[in-house]
Amino acid sequence: MTTRKLLLLPGDGIGPEAMAEVEKLIAAINEEAGAGFESERALVGGSAYDAHGAAISDADMTLAMDADAVLFGAVGGPKWDGVPYESRPEAGLLRLRKDMGLFANLRPAICYPALAEASSLKRELVDGLDILILRELTGGVYFGEPKEIIDLGNGQKRGVDTQVYETYEIERIARAAFELARTRRGKVTSMEKRNVMKTGVLWNEVVTAVHGREYPDIALDHMLADAGGMKLVQNPKQFDVIVTDNLFGDMLSDIAAMLTGSLGMLPSASLGAPDEVTGKRRALYEPVHGSAPDIAGQGLANPIAMIASFAMMLRYSFEMVAEADALEAAIAAILDAGTRTGDIMAPGCRQVGTAEMGDAIVAAF
Amino acid sequence: MTTRKLLLLPGDGIGPEAMAEVEKLIAAINEEAGAGFESERALVGGSAYDAHGAAISDADMTLAMDADAVLFGAVGGPKWDGVPYESRPEAGLLRLRKDMGLFANLRPAICYPALAEASSLKRELVDGLDILILRELTGGVYFGEPKEIIDLGNGQKRGVDTQVYETYEIERIARAAFELARTRRGKVTSMEKRNVMKTGVLWNEVVTAVHGREYPDIALDHMLADAGGMKLVQNPKQFDVIVTDNLFGDMLSDIAAMLTGSLGMLPSASLGAPDEVTGKRRALYEPVHGSAPDIAGQGLANPIAMIASFAMMLRYSFEMVAEADALEAAIAAILDAGTRTGDIMAPGCRQVGTAEMGDAIVAAF
Ligand SMILES: CC(C)[C@H](C(=O)O)[C@@H](O)C(=O)O
Ligand SMILES: CC(C)[C@H](C(=O)O)[C@@H](O)C(=O)O
Repeated sequence: MTTRKLLLLPGDGIGPEAMAEVEKLIAAINEEAGAGFESERALVGGSAYDAHGAAISDADMTLAMDADAVLFGAVGGPKWDGVPYESRPEAGLLRLRKDMGLFANLRPAICYPALAEASSLKRELVDGLDILILRELTGGVYFGEPKEIIDLGNGQKRGVDTQVYETYEIERIARAAFELARTRRGKVTSMEKRNVMKTGVLWNEVVTAVHGREYPDIALDHMLADAGGMKLVQNPKQFDVIVTDNLFGDMLSDIAAMLTGSLGMLPSASLGAPDEVTGKRRALYEPVHGSAPDIAGQGLANPIAMIASFAMMLRYSFEMVAEADALEAAIAAILDAGTRTGDIMAPGCRQVGTAEMGDAIVAAF
Repeated sequence: MTTRKLLLLPGDGIGPEAMAEVEKLIAAINEEAGAGFESERALVGGSAYDAHGAAISDADMTLAMDADAVLFGAVGGPKWDGVPYESRPEAGLLRLRKDMGLFANLRPAICYPALAEASSLKRELVDGLDILILRELTGGVYFGEPKEIIDLGNGQKRGVDTQVYETYEIERIARAAFELARTRRGKVTSMEKRNVMKTGVLWNEVVTAVHGREYPDIALDHMLADAGGMKLVQNPKQFDVIVTDNLFGDMLSDIAAMLTGSLGMLPSASLGAPDEVTGKRRALYEPVHGSAPDIAGQGLANPIAMIASFAMMLRYSFEMVAEADALEAAIAAILDAGTRTGDIMAPGCRQVGTAEMGDAIVAAF
């Protein structure tokens, strides 16, 4: 029997309780489909800091590097506001991204019809929305050096961050965008600020070259990131795949997620390059929402984004397409049936907690 | 009689035709109120490049430095896509901001009730919206060095941009935010990415310190810029003054502008520090919209953002508060009466061109 090694990193806040619902699914899928998932939990974020003094321990990093896939919850909370910068909860996630080489971050922004009313946008602008933001995840201002605060004396300090992109980094994310567009509606919009940033000039040049050389069948548009952000809130359905850098991708994917009215529902996948020998790619799956410390531990959290992240894992890491489709259909069916956690509660629906929502999805799966 | 020296920099695209409507207003206000405005036009952007080979000539820079206030239109267009980076249309605007020391960029996002329907957001979320985005304008990734593309050989290049902020730069924009909040609803939200950027850490620290020392009467919140962007599209009315850096401010102010449904209506002001001797501050006023090359020269452009920028000039550079109020009221009255350019046309309204809109506002003023 195949065994599939999963590392579960629930993290902080609502991470652990949402992860528990995925563990139910893993048990069900092992039993029914003999999927052979072997999962173990490890620590990341503030909870790792409390246990090991680091946002992820070296031992747990090794587990992540060796796993077939990683499922990540969320990190952070006011409790760790004062910890040293290198040990802050986010550092665990950033180390995972960097060391695992997860350069391609897929953030689908879809609007579940049952939830279109929850969007701040007019219903007709988001109903049926299905766009994909592809964010570069291991470069840019997140990792460039120097990144420092220098004491200049006289009460003055200087903070510095450096945005760096090399041709090969832009080439591989551009290829990923064009490949994904081929499986969708065949359209890529690249966003940067070439009118102000040299990395934007290079980004634009490299995306254009990859397109001309390798993907003439795909429609490519370029937009300045500020104008692109405006178009996104004005009429998101004009897009198919948006490809952009680490920092713009952070902002734009969050805004797109919020537009759908389905923030608590949205998954993401972060993928590395295929191994040259085995063809396997490292991967981490993660809900788009944060750790929500205000409701943590109360059984109120919506587990759907975590479960949908697991569905993406089935699809992208294990090619279990039928199971992924079935799981996504189960989520949609439960929503259509009016089962809701508090964050997406609407008149006429039935409000449930985290565990009951998880059970309902397992039952419908 | 006082004389007030204005430099008008219409720029490219629809800039010149929108500027002509302000010139009518200047004539009217000189005649009726003896305001003593002396205005002259000069070139910036692509049109300056065509005439002088630079996005603004040194002679015109001198005029801008010596003026009591500058009114700027918009720059850029496909015609200049291929010009050298240092001469691209935007370089003229960036030089004006830097050389004039315009560190404080005020971008009000207000929603004219007559236009609330044009927003992509649900009406109740934007109707009556009145928030102010205060963007730092002379620092950050726009001006930090190194900013370059290095050829690494082997078909590889490296693009680099540098975000730099020093304590004094953050202190002065924080003070501006708190001062503005005092004249409004007393609330400031500061946005950065301190979980990823060292400049964000410094930003957060300095804003907090200025607040504690000098403005304990103002309510201060901190948000991560990605979360702040989400809150902005979810429920913009929760904000009063948002203060943020140059790049986040670029994105967030454009998104806020689009949310109002009133993009063609929104002005901005960019202010320098008061001169230590005279107390005068350099200032440039500018519509938020771009140069719209697709409709340029056809008399279709909406001149309201340019006229509202002139109203901000009356208010901030010349303390002509009564005139500024009257001009803003004239704009609102014309909109309420159903006079519309094509971009804001709605059923039951009367569609007019640029000149007719300008004339209507002059008549109502
Ligand atoms: C937690 C934080 C470091 C992270 C980021 O900025 O990338 C988060 O906002 C995200 O989008 O995944
Ligand atoms: C034209 C461009 C350089 C400018 C900027 O990025 O600052 C514009 O987008 C703005 O917001 O004023």
